[in-house]
Amino acid sequence: MTNSSDNFRCLALSGGVGGAKLALGLSKVLSPDQLTVIANTGDDFDHLGFHICPDLDTVMYTLADLSNKDVGWGQEGETWHFLEALQRFEEETWFKLGDRDLATHVARTVKLGQGRTLSEVTRELCHGLSIDHPIIPMSDDTISTVVHTDSETLSFQHYFVRDRCEPVVTGFDFEGIEDAKPSPGFEQALDDPNLGLIVICPSNPFVSVDPILLVPGVKERIAERKVPMVAVSPIVSGLAIKGPAAKMMKELGMPQSATAVAEHYVAKYGEILTGFIIDEQDRELATLAQSLGLETIVTNTVMVTLQDRINLANESLKFAKGK
Amino acid sequence: MTNSSDNFRCLALSGGVGGAKLALGLSKVLSPDQLTVIANTGDDFDHLGFHICPDLDTVMYTLADLSNKDVGWGQEGETWHFLEALQRFEEETWFKLGDRDLATHVARTVKLGQGRTLSEVTRELCHGLSIDHPIIPMSDDTISTVVHTDSETLSFQHYFVRDRCEPVVTGFDFEGIEDAKPSPGFEQALDDPNLGLIVICPSNPFVSVDPILLVPGVKERIAERKVPMVAVSPIVSGLAIKGPAAKMMKELGMPQSATAVAEHYVAKYGEILTGFIIDEQDRELATLAQSLGLETIVTNTVMVTLQDRINLANESLKFAKGK
Repeated sequence: MTNSSDNFRCLALSGGVGGAKLALGLSKVLSPDQLTVIANTGDDFDHLGFHICPDLDTVMYTLADLSNKDVGWGQEGETWHFLEALQRFEEETWFKLGDRDLATHVARTVKLGQGRTLSEVTRELCHGLSIDHPIIPMSDDTISTVVHTDSETLSFQHYFVRDRCEPVVTGFDFEGIEDAKPSPGFEQALDDPNLGLIVICPSNPFVSVDPILLVPGVKERIAERKVPMVAVSPIVSGLAIKGPAAKMMKELGMPQSATAVAEHYVAKYGEILTGFIIDEQDRELATLAQSLGLETIVTNTVMVTLQDRINLANESLKFAKGK
Repeated sequence: MTNSSDNFRCLALSGGVGGAKLALGLSKVLSPDQLTVIANTGDDFDHLGFHICPDLDTVMYTLADLSNKDVGWGQEGETWHFLEALQRFEEETWFKLGDRDLATHVARTVKLGQGRTLSEVTRELCHGLSIDHPIIPMSDDTISTVVHTDSETLSFQHYFVRDRCEPVVTGFDFEGIEDAKPSPGFEQALDDPNLGLIVICPSNPFVSVDPILLVPGVKERIAERKVPMVAVSPIVSGLAIKGPAAKMMKELGMPQSATAVAEHYVAKYGEILTGFIIDEQDRELATLAQSLGLETIVTNTVMVTLQDRINLANESLKFAKGK
């Protein structure tokens, strides 16, 4: 392990697929006492009566070694008999609910209906999947990402899955965020005296990372604590490894580059971002990132193998306090 | 077809497996305009957030040729990935929800949640399964069969599935039945001037047929109309073909015989029962059934093949008015 101190704590902020890959790498080099993964819940939605948390699920499935490596969502070896049968009844089938995946949504919905918080329910689900590292929702309050487009305002999953990110985005809102609080586990992690590093995983800055950092009190706590915070660019060579981040940047009038991601974070959160990791393919952008005041590492950020994930985890841990 | 008149209408009253077999036979010899199947809904229950109607589902799956012939419930070639995955989350798995079957419960629950009645939703589900013959719930109101046992009172599915019919029964109640009405389709069928026969399928008298006939107004309408009503004994040679009927009769202090079923119906509903069908194995009971004032046919009632179902349907149609 890069950081063998029992007293070291790392907080990883993650959206779905890309973020979960680095979270997995971190979980291989840090013990459950050393790592807390906070997942975005702005994508959560109610569908067919189920409460679905796509990013939490992706992180859970990834850390449980259940995730489907080919498509990046859902479970490996999944079957689709439920969805095929549902099609006959003219219910919505655009959100691909696998037979095994469905159990997660049903169990979550039942447990929430019994009055437990999303944090409590997530802990139970992680226990059921034998996940050792804590995976915690950013908030137990409902925060709903809405996507403003040039023609209409869409709920996130309608934009992302149903409409396949085709509409041209003009901005985002996180409904309910003003009245939301960080989840108890998120607060505890932020207040932990041993917190030595916050890692912003390579997730979509606009719809995965921003909602986490914009939960009231989060960026203020990070600023107070002066804990190093490093972001891994989700943009490599002008392209998003996964998802619509690059397309969104273009539509929002931003350059499609790793440094534009850094600029976005610096503009939005000021000095709390202290480090940046860019891919070897973007080596020439390192100076630009440094000019933003960010300690910068150039390394391989394209995580194909488990070893890639572990290597990137180790690189990000170099930013830790007292490393 | 036994009854070729376009103006002839038959009403079949059915519980689950046994009843559905005869309903299938009837559907092979009567057109959708000639046959209406009324299913018991006293077994319905809410489970894991789903509204489940076991008897309606069994009749639907049987008429859609989807039913699992081996176990008698659920769908043929079903998979169980949802349930296997659910087990990890310590949710209740005693009610065996198959992956395809689940779509029925989800669609029903979503559609009911949109404010439609159970009759309307059932019509949509049948349409989705390409079922031509009308299958109609006995009531759109909630009627819940409860089973009194020598130790406790159980909801029907807890008795039937979870506890495998092991508790000793002392009686039954149909909660909510006093305030319930027959479904519009059931009323319409009962009022149809062309109604020429009511067939009580070989279902459990206590928990499948009684709840249908006890919906307020049903037996009175049948009595007024003087429509022939024939019951097929679910008891053959002292045993129930399927389910706990014989065990219940023993526990209730009744003889376990076909004629005890006839006596139950005659005692409970008087003269509205006009005919009775008993199996060849019970040929010696025919005189006893006749002594109850019932026109009686002895035939093969053990339906193994589709032709058995069709033959029994044709036998039951011999009781029709103007046959």
